[in-house]
Amino acid sequence: MNLQRVGEDRLLAQILPRLPRGRKVIAGAGDDCAVVDLDGQRKLSLLKTDCVVAGVHFSAKADAESVGWKAMARTLSDFAAMSGVPQFALVTLIAPRATKVAWVKKLYRGLNKAAQKFGVTIVGGETSSTRGPVVVSVSAIGFVEKNRCVSRAGGRVGDALFVTGRLGASIRGRHLRFIPRITESRWLTKNFSIHAMMDLSDGLGADLPRMARASKVGFRIEMKTLPLAPGAKINNAVSDGEDYELLFAISPRHRTRLEKSWRKEFPRVALTFIGRFSQTSTRNSQLSGGYVHFQ
Amino acid sequence: MNLQRVGEDRLLAQILPRLPRGRKVIAGAGDDCAVVDLDGQRKLSLLKTDCVVAGVHFSAKADAESVGWKAMARTLSDFAAMSGVPQFALVTLIAPRATKVAWVKKLYRGLNKAAQKFGVTIVGGETSSTRGPVVVSVSAIGFVEKNRCVSRAGGRVGDALFVTGRLGASIRGRHLRFIPRITESRWLTKNFSIHAMMDLSDGLGADLPRMARASKVGFRIEMKTLPLAPGAKINNAVSDGEDYELLFAISPRHRTRLEKSWRKEFPRVALTFIGRFSQTSTRNSQLSGGYVHFQ
Repeated sequence: MNLQRVGEDRLLAQILPRLPRGRKVIAGAGDDCAVVDLDGQRKLSLLKTDCVVAGVHFSAKADAESVGWKAMARTLSDFAAMSGVPQFALVTLIAPRATKVAWVKKLYRGLNKAAQKFGVTIVGGETSSTRGPVVVSVSAIGFVEKNRCVSRAGGRVGDALFVTGRLGASIRGRHLRFIPRITESRWLTKNFSIHAMMDLSDGLGADLPRMARASKVGFRIEMKTLPLAPGAKINNAVSDGEDYELLFAISPRHRTRLEKSWRKEFPRVALTFIGRFSQTSTRNSQLSGGYVHFQ
Repeated sequence: MNLQRVGEDRLLAQILPRLPRGRKVIAGAGDDCAVVDLDGQRKLSLLKTDCVVAGVHFSAKADAESVGWKAMARTLSDFAAMSGVPQFALVTLIAPRATKVAWVKKLYRGLNKAAQKFGVTIVGGETSSTRGPVVVSVSAIGFVEKNRCVSRAGGRVGDALFVTGRLGASIRGRHLRFIPRITESRWLTKNFSIHAMMDLSDGLGADLPRMARASKVGFRIEMKTLPLAPGAKINNAVSDGEDYELLFAISPRHRTRLEKSWRKEFPRVALTFIGRFSQTSTRNSQLSGGYVHFQ
């Protein structure tokens, strides 16, 4: 059995529960960030690492500054998913010896631009050579107040489901310049009780079932209401991935107040009600295989 | 100009000082770990990321468990370098789709073995596909008490220089099973005032000049006294790299007490006096180019 056949979710499920967990670990692998209680204070620490690989996450033709932006923004997007505040980042660049120094400088300009926009300091840089494609790995640490940490697991039957922004067709360019939804996510937990949240990286069709599974509920989605990015059809919004928008669950009682105050606070970012969490059903539990058409 | 010609030290020197540093950052890129003051308490937080790349840090034939051990141990060795206590680790595995699941499980067994030996919990795992060689990236966070944090920069003229273990010929197998010197390093700062310390990853000939430069001193080494690993000659001890032993500077007044109590505490780990920090001289400042013969 190789990695292609088993799939990332199943592989991690096989490996990760076997890893011993200390008592300070609130949430380990499986949620967007790892959550640890480093000091027993009011704040939890969040840890996250992510990477981009040439030929997988960006093409050889992509502008180096955009690649750097994306590498940092992907990691920061997972802080948004938990309503966290990222603070420090470490960067590992794995690149062939023939890589131009000018390219690396532009890469760092992009990394730093994304970091600075969200108050993050890059505190370490490693480089390694490779005979393969360029890899940029970004790890970050930050915090979230204990009463504002949102995992994937708190959704309840009846919750209203929302997504930010517009979905699909990210490959046309948005995947290299998206804005991690940190500001929006911090605003949400400051003003509302958010039951469950995540960032959409693998597409709604893969990610929503993950959140539903973590919350032990099912879901019903109005496919026609999905907010489509320019050039995207419903299928793209479901399956393309790399949207880096927020998906979250909130009590239906707060729906109207949320929609109203969101429009006021973020007039240029769409917020769309896409459906509800429901009772777990056989039908929904069959959607657990990753990229799925779930009309 | 490409990466091969410019070299890692010069590249990082070009890029990293331009990265803005927050006030909470005690030591950024350039030392073994990044050091940040997260909470203004008695402890500093240490952050470190490192990676291993197939074809560079291990051969395709290497046992997966050893590869996992090495990937974790390299990162932990940088905590030893600053007398830190690692606590949590994140792992990113970048592997071709054809990689066997059994190989990945063995890799994680090695990662976890090294983590557990030093009380570290693996709290996150990411995977990505690649068309290139396997990359395993490990980030870790930990702490060090403010009065026990040792950087590379505190060395003084006249300090005695010591190395742990034996150097050279690591490629014969030691590079896959070395023990990060965390226990020894913690013992050192508990019992002695260590002025400067680092772990030897690129070979004494590259690393000692770095420490001397950071401390703004020169050095004089007795080449004949270098502790040689089986099969190693002096040149190997200077230039091979991947020793992961500690190099540290201590006041010459404490030399005798150190040697005596070390033998009692660590009877199976060599500790060797190799020379002294001296006044900066033209001759020494010419050694700054990386892998050098400095007889």
